[in-house]
Amino acid sequence: MPVRTITWQDRALTIIDQTLLPTEYREIPLDTAEKVWEAIRTLRVRGAPAIGVCAAFGVVVGVLEAHPGNVSEAAAAARRTADYLATSRPTAVNLFWALDRMTAHVATIESLDSLDAFIAALEAEANAIFEEDRAMCRSIGAAGEPLIPEGAGVLTHCNAGGLATSDYGTALALMFRAHELGRSLRVFADETRPLLQGARLTAWELQQAGIPVTVICDNSAAQVMREGRIQLVIVGADRIASNGDAANKIGTYSVAVLARAHNIPFYVAAPTSTIDHAILTGADIPIEQRPRAEIASGFGRVTVPDGVDVYNPAFDVTPADLISAIITEHGIHRPPYTSTLPRTASGATQSVR
Amino acid sequence: MPVRTITWQDRALTIIDQTLLPTEYREIPLDTAEKVWEAIRTLRVRGAPAIGVCAAFGVVVGVLEAHPGNVSEAAAAARRTADYLATSRPTAVNLFWALDRMTAHVATIESLDSLDAFIAALEAEANAIFEEDRAMCRSIGAAGEPLIPEGAGVLTHCNAGGLATSDYGTALALMFRAHELGRSLRVFADETRPLLQGARLTAWELQQAGIPVTVICDNSAAQVMREGRIQLVIVGADRIASNGDAANKIGTYSVAVLARAHNIPFYVAAPTSTIDHAILTGADIPIEQRPRAEIASGFGRVTVPDGVDVYNPAFDVTPADLISAIITEHGIHRPPYTSTLPRTASGATQSVR
Repeated sequence: MPVRTITWQDRALTIIDQTLLPTEYREIPLDTAEKVWEAIRTLRVRGAPAIGVCAAFGVVVGVLEAHPGNVSEAAAAARRTADYLATSRPTAVNLFWALDRMTAHVATIESLDSLDAFIAALEAEANAIFEEDRAMCRSIGAAGEPLIPEGAGVLTHCNAGGLATSDYGTALALMFRAHELGRSLRVFADETRPLLQGARLTAWELQQAGIPVTVICDNSAAQVMREGRIQLVIVGADRIASNGDAANKIGTYSVAVLARAHNIPFYVAAPTSTIDHAILTGADIPIEQRPRAEIASGFGRVTVPDGVDVYNPAFDVTPADLISAIITEHGIHRPPYTSTLPRTASGATQSVR
Repeated sequence: MPVRTITWQDRALTIIDQTLLPTEYREIPLDTAEKVWEAIRTLRVRGAPAIGVCAAFGVVVGVLEAHPGNVSEAAAAARRTADYLATSRPTAVNLFWALDRMTAHVATIESLDSLDAFIAALEAEANAIFEEDRAMCRSIGAAGEPLIPEGAGVLTHCNAGGLATSDYGTALALMFRAHELGRSLRVFADETRPLLQGARLTAWELQQAGIPVTVICDNSAAQVMREGRIQLVIVGADRIASNGDAANKIGTYSVAVLARAHNIPFYVAAPTSTIDHAILTGADIPIEQRPRAEIASGFGRVTVPDGVDVYNPAFDVTPADLISAIITEHGIHRPPYTSTLPRTASGATQSVR
């Protein structure tokens, strides 16, 4: 703790291959833009903030890979790489936010004379995104930890931990911080079908941190709530509309409905860069559809008969009225979100494609 | 259609090994009481009615296996086998109901002089349970099919089809019957973690019958409801208390809460033998806890870190107030269930251990 989800050292990008956890811990180099794209697409690196940081470094990787002869060629390679990486996944707004920030930075540094200076400046911008993400995690944890009472049972869905960010996460940051302060808690982690990020990643991270965790099937969350074992729900988000509607891993909406039915507060923890003010409601958030095989044969065994349809949306949208509060690096925001959510990401302009 | 879930021919018991579906269809002989016990325990045969029928034939298997020299020895073997098989699974009341019926029958036939006549009479009782179960499926389907409107989307959880009975099921019977009548419908099948009976078995049965089916992860049910694709939910039950509280596969309670939140009717289809009037409310239904490995390494790959806790209840209890109607072979029963549910199973006395 914290895990080194993404490492940038000597101008080389390395990530933990999250598809191999929890049975194997392996760091893999991403030395071409194509490898960065593939790693994002196949969820070797996942989680909205981590995708953004990885893509930012990916732009530098694309420039280095192109072996540009001058600043103009380097700037072109950076823009080309950014456009390419933006096609890797459609829902996580941090991806576009980070790439837009990198290309905006290209515009300000392409007047530099020296190719070395240009690359160093581009690298510095990616590093800044990385460092801001680390600081953001700490701030979210500190802002939100008072929401976790002593002895609480906390339900979470998917993985919004260190593996989803550059540092110690968004939803899990609250738990890590409460644990550091000596508070006792138990986490129930939805295994999170189809890719089991809860079972594989959240459980692993919490175990590393020494926080008691119990893995349940997604369909057991209601039962665990009914048994009185859950005092609050905390999840992350991939994109939040201006009105507070929040897109997150498929199944989050289900948990929110169940929490409401059991009078349990439901919190979303996410950086300001996840808030997309260009989108007024969740109805306008595009939802990625993932391959049939993730459900039908995801773990090395065919579990759906050939020829049977599968529906595999990667995300759902939890309406703002089911969200008790949204926690960002700026604090705890309560409804009505249209007036309480911060307007801009930390110091950055924000746009969406 | 219908599938031959359980076959009794020439005094030999054969079942479809449901753990191998949908990739392999294999019928396996159960020629010892121990094999019957193991098949029930490991869910090679599953579904409350099918467990009851299989156990009834299992009593005959136990007698034949003992090679009794006279009626007294045969009666003792029957009682011993019944006691043994009752330990295979704790929640499905049909198991106890069928075994009690067999031992009650032993008491009425142990005055017979001929060992052959005794065994034939015991066999006839098991066959009667089997045939009654077949008739029960047809009656449930006929009673309930009017609940499915033309063009409906129907959500179901786990498998309450032909594979769960001797014939064409309980919850699925309504769909099979509506389909036979030419009605158009689409079924959404929760895959049903951890053992994926929905993906593996329900999808397979519906595909065989030519009914359009889409498999979803359990955590997507809320989203599919929200999209307006579900007009009703139909599930089976493993035990129903006198007040209508219904124990069924883990996740059923979750679906019921979600259906209520989306104003979708939620129906339970089950034979009268599932109703346990000795139990007043669901709080008194014992819930089987299943092995950690079903969640942690069920797909042939470790998906939960070693040392992390898992909570794996096999069932949950849906409170009667979330159930729009209960369909038995006698018709559609509406709340208040304490006064509307049939008092006894088809012609049989009923007791519970």
